[in-house]
Amino acid sequence: MRRQKIGILGATGMVGQRFIQLLEHHPWFEIAWLAASDKSSGKSYGDAVKWKLDTTLPAHIAKMPVSPATPEGAPKVVFAALDSDIARDLEPKFAAAGCAVISNSSAFRMQEDVPLVIPEVNADHLPLLENQSWRKQSGGYIVTNPNCSAIGLVLALKPLEERFGIESIFVSTMQAVSGAGYPGVASLDILGNVVPYIKSEEEKMQEETLKLLGSLKGSRIESLAAKISAHCNRVPVEDGHTESVSVKLRKPATREEILAAWGDFKPLAGQNLPTAPAQPIEFVSADDRPQPRLDRMRGNGMASTVGRLRPCPLLDWKFTVLSHNTIRGAAGAALLNAELLVSLGKLDPVAVTA
Amino acid sequence: MRRQKIGILGATGMVGQRFIQLLEHHPWFEIAWLAASDKSSGKSYGDAVKWKLDTTLPAHIAKMPVSPATPEGAPKVVFAALDSDIARDLEPKFAAAGCAVISNSSAFRMQEDVPLVIPEVNADHLPLLENQSWRKQSGGYIVTNPNCSAIGLVLALKPLEERFGIESIFVSTMQAVSGAGYPGVASLDILGNVVPYIKSEEEKMQEETLKLLGSLKGSRIESLAAKISAHCNRVPVEDGHTESVSVKLRKPATREEILAAWGDFKPLAGQNLPTAPAQPIEFVSADDRPQPRLDRMRGNGMASTVGRLRPCPLLDWKFTVLSHNTIRGAAGAALLNAELLVSLGKLDPVAVTA
Amino acid sequence: MRRQKIGILGATGMVGQRFIQLLEHHPWFEIAWLAASDKSSGKSYGDAVKWKLDTTLPAHIAKMPVSPATPEGAPKVVFAALDSDIARDLEPKFAAAGCAVISNSSAFRMQEDVPLVIPEVNADHLPLLENQSWRKQSGGYIVTNPNCSAIGLVLALKPLEERFGIESIFVSTMQAVSGAGYPGVASLDILGNVVPYIKSEEEKMQEETLKLLGSLKGSRIESLAAKISAHCNRVPVEDGHTESVSVKLRKPATREEILAAWGDFKPLAGQNLPTAPAQPIEFVSADDRPQPRLDRMRGNGMASTVGRLRPCPLLDWKFTVLSHNTIRGAAGAALLNAELLVSLGKLDPVAVTA
Amino acid sequence: MRRQKIGILGATGMVGQRFIQLLEHHPWFEIAWLAASDKSSGKSYGDAVKWKLDTTLPAHIAKMPVSPATPEGAPKVVFAALDSDIARDLEPKFAAAGCAVISNSSAFRMQEDVPLVIPEVNADHLPLLENQSWRKQSGGYIVTNPNCSAIGLVLALKPLEERFGIESIFVSTMQAVSGAGYPGVASLDILGNVVPYIKSEEEKMQEETLKLLGSLKGSRIESLAAKISAHCNRVPVEDGHTESVSVKLRKPATREEILAAWGDFKPLAGQNLPTAPAQPIEFVSADDRPQPRLDRMRGNGMASTVGRLRPCPLLDWKFTVLSHNTIRGAAGAALLNAELLVSLGKLDPVAVTA
Repeated sequence: MRRQKIGILGATGMVGQRFIQLLEHHPWFEIAWLAASDKSSGKSYGDAVKWKLDTTLPAHIAKMPVSPATPEGAPKVVFAALDSDIARDLEPKFAAAGCAVISNSSAFRMQEDVPLVIPEVNADHLPLLENQSWRKQSGGYIVTNPNCSAIGLVLALKPLEERFGIESIFVSTMQAVSGAGYPGVASLDILGNVVPYIKSEEEKMQEETLKLLGSLKGSRIESLAAKISAHCNRVPVEDGHTESVSVKLRKPATREEILAAWGDFKPLAGQNLPTAPAQPIEFVSADDRPQPRLDRMRGNGMASTVGRLRPCPLLDWKFTVLSHNTIRGAAGAALLNAELLVSLGKLDPVAVTA
Repeated sequence: MRRQKIGILGATGMVGQRFIQLLEHHPWFEIAWLAASDKSSGKSYGDAVKWKLDTTLPAHIAKMPVSPATPEGAPKVVFAALDSDIARDLEPKFAAAGCAVISNSSAFRMQEDVPLVIPEVNADHLPLLENQSWRKQSGGYIVTNPNCSAIGLVLALKPLEERFGIESIFVSTMQAVSGAGYPGVASLDILGNVVPYIKSEEEKMQEETLKLLGSLKGSRIESLAAKISAHCNRVPVEDGHTESVSVKLRKPATREEILAAWGDFKPLAGQNLPTAPAQPIEFVSADDRPQPRLDRMRGNGMASTVGRLRPCPLLDWKFTVLSHNTIRGAAGAALLNAELLVSLGKLDPVAVTA
Repeated sequence: MRRQKIGILGATGMVGQRFIQLLEHHPWFEIAWLAASDKSSGKSYGDAVKWKLDTTLPAHIAKMPVSPATPEGAPKVVFAALDSDIARDLEPKFAAAGCAVISNSSAFRMQEDVPLVIPEVNADHLPLLENQSWRKQSGGYIVTNPNCSAIGLVLALKPLEERFGIESIFVSTMQAVSGAGYPGVASLDILGNVVPYIKSEEEKMQEETLKLLGSLKGSRIESLAAKISAHCNRVPVEDGHTESVSVKLRKPATREEILAAWGDFKPLAGQNLPTAPAQPIEFVSADDRPQPRLDRMRGNGMASTVGRLRPCPLLDWKFTVLSHNTIRGAAGAALLNAELLVSLGKLDPVAVTA
Repeated sequence: MRRQKIGILGATGMVGQRFIQLLEHHPWFEIAWLAASDKSSGKSYGDAVKWKLDTTLPAHIAKMPVSPATPEGAPKVVFAALDSDIARDLEPKFAAAGCAVISNSSAFRMQEDVPLVIPEVNADHLPLLENQSWRKQSGGYIVTNPNCSAIGLVLALKPLEERFGIESIFVSTMQAVSGAGYPGVASLDILGNVVPYIKSEEEKMQEETLKLLGSLKGSRIESLAAKISAHCNRVPVEDGHTESVSVKLRKPATREEILAAWGDFKPLAGQNLPTAPAQPIEFVSADDRPQPRLDRMRGNGMASTVGRLRPCPLLDWKFTVLSHNTIRGAAGAALLNAELLVSLGKLDPVAVTA
């Protein structure tokens, strides 16, 4: 079986590096093109990157040239790991040129005709992409995954919404520094410290969560009619976002019913997407779990781990949720989106629209 | 002016060390007696203690003997920094022997006739102590200060309760390791990690907050009729508890009104208690504050710092509060209680009841 | 092929856990017996252990009973991960009962008839075990691996000793907290801090290094005739010991010759020991490497990574060396020793002596 | 007594902030002028700075304007906390304009006619400044203090050199992140990690140490004729550089003689320089000290703390030394230099040369 050639936009950043790591032995995709800013293009990837992962940069990737971030020469499938401002400018150019842009950026997540997708949660939002003008003209499109703080939370909430309905959500995050990219957070700001602020993060987390849990109505998404309040904090953790969550449900649920909802949640079962975890939501029963250092790699970094389920004196239930912010919350999220698109026959855009 | 001799129970622990540090140049009190467990008693304090503070252990304290933890030979005023199980056994013995026990332990905080006090918040709860059987028999009594996670929060809430009324409180904490004493939290558990659990902490925080904001009705405290939900987390910070808070008020309040309520809150003004901060609640306007490393020492560690005041989509307002957990949240809290008792003429129990 | 049944003494500790993790899919060995202190024995392993690794405790191991730490019922091959004091008492009992005790403890490392072995460095010291009285009587014996701080260093020094001779060694360590076991180092002692002391560590590092680099002369090891001075420090790192090293050689060597000595060093090549890294010494050329977070997992945690080779104004050359302290420095070291013993036909002691 | 007006070049950086903190209640100096890069000049200091210290920015300083970094309008005494490249260009302009430039930068430390001074160590090197062409023409001059890694070490070595002579020095550092300024070290590089490299640091440490311990011979400094080798490492510590040191002496010295040399070392006694610590070298006898978190503030951050004195198998003695890198190692060092210059009558350059 031939693997599909893909490209990575923003290949030298932290999320770009995770794409390379996760794609190293991928059965369906093959890295054929790496692009980064002008500062890097023209160099070999090995010279351009400050590799910050604890696995070795593959030698054949190190030798690949870094291309300019323009659609010329790019493959038809492009993973985009760009800062939002740059994404706003560049991603449409690639979509217009006929590329499937699988984006991790926030630039177009809330745009009406752009699917914001977690495969286990709202694969049924994907038809939105057919409304995109790029799609109609060139076959290209943009599909996005949510913010790293929203994705673990929404995985944990989805089965509760399905079975009991959700009325209100309170969430307070303790987010890892890798979420800010590199160099990102200065060590003087975070060693032995907490920073109770991440720019625009609470807004994103609130609106993306409701869009993800919403429904496709005709040509648009109707966000979930629930209230949500997020407090976002940065803590001295390398990887893994931990979140304290309270929820109010529309129908009463017992502890056992909630555990069953989480345990039964396997919407991708049987689809054999290579990056999909067998158990998207893992419940740990120990009092003091989940913890980022111990639990972030569950499901190869793709599971959302929940624990500490207990009654909430204010809403109905409270619990802790954890997920790996640069795997499930970024590169792995986009990769799983791409695998879903392959399984739906939408990843060779030109072919599909021909 | 002669200083009053005081003793410290549990003198070798983290809070005991803070007592010694804070009392070093105190104008009213003089350390006359140090007690600790059998393992330490008989040694000099300098030999018994593993001094963990960043100021030097005073030489004359290092030479003091460590006494056994029994009332014989103890002064009439005793600061108690004991583990809860030990406090439950020992503190009544000292009260029965006529000592004023100024306790930082949780053992008796929720007992009906024991005042749980923050001087700026509920000094009017102190008359409860007259109901204690020890008081009636020997003149001794127990007065307590709250848990380190409750105290900063309650300071920030009190002026809101006074002006607007409080209906619901949501709080998620990020607590420093010093709150667990020494050796306390293992480094393998917390380096680059979050532990989303502190035994009994959420229960204490919830019930103490409502008692502190309650009213003395006859011979008992009626807790505030509000709902409160706490999530307690441990983070890799040495000192300073940071808390994400949302509140629902009974009357609408604007941002300016809330800031005014905090700014005007100076209930101890004019009383000249040595440890009382001039401004018990300090508001910082920068987006990313308060932070434990930068703000915990405001008011010499006795201020509660608030920031990030913004509307809450679920309740009314949300903000971040920070306080120093072993100063304002423990030794400084007890010390301020003692100063208040002095100013009320209740610190020489024998004299008062004679 | 049937796998040999092995036991683990001290199975609930940090090194015990690493043994379980490393043996999970081992082609030659199968965990048949887990023993720990009285506090744990009688429980299931899952109930007895506080599992602190970031991979999941295998379900079938969790269900295994914890046995008392006595030779009755133990398999003939036992990995020992005991505190030194306990090892001094227990390990001889197992050896006397006919077990091959593959020990990570320091108790017998310097005993004259006990091999202290790194397979790549001094496999030729193993015949010492035939001198042990246990060996002669029951077939049992004790083989040890070095301290976690010595092992990475000695790997880096061995090829230099072989090619150029070593006259003096200076080493200053920055050691991870996992080396102290669990609970080990208190977080209050190490967060944002350095502790410039680890009990007995400098002595062990100095004497073990010279024994490892020494030669078997008749029935005893003659330690290398070199001077060595070690400074041992603890730093806030979870795993991975980093060491600043200077060496004086007996023969002059160029940078290229040193790099060649390291690169050519593959003494186990062709033996197919499952845990042996293909490249025991990995040189990284970037200025700022090796780093524990990025490099400790090279060779699945079994490589010693060197970098920053540069002239030393005082001795001849200086460099930095890093190795994973609980894999290459403990459980992996013992496991590789066991594999070497299998390949030499010495792991079924009864059979051998029959 | 009128205080002398001083200026700060590079006032918004980490060292600039320390200058402001240390000068807040200084009896001799008054901050009259703050300068920073073009990006900041024109703003108020409060708007221009990201204040990162744990004391409050004084309100009157926050209101001061930030001036452009040119000599026009600057006072005659200027503390310079500039990056080396900028210092190389700017400091001569201020000296040429008649300013006494008290510099913390490395730009001119090794220049033949520029004194590199620690007041307790080599105040007798100051006459070098009279050789500067600026001095001759305008009265202005440049005086420098050493690198933050050298200063604590040299304080500890000076009394050993005086009494016993020093032949060789080995030092391995564990340096705090604040030494790299702000934003400085990325949190992703240092959380749970060690970086065994700081650009040019080993070279500076080696050559500055020997110059500081050298002697003024005619119009130049003859560096100490000793060998020195430095390994420089970055560790996750906020403030305080810890160093493992071995020394070879020219004359034998006992432990008691070394302790006496350190204890007797009070070369500034009786001079009443406000920033000079009463005891420049503090010896701590506990096995596991000094530690940065506990000992960096000794002598208000101006002492060099030594501990763990023990024989070195390779050289003669080994010990650990610690000093606060942004107080004794930067702003406090420059401030003490300025106080020494005042006491020598050299701080009003125009007056002196008139």
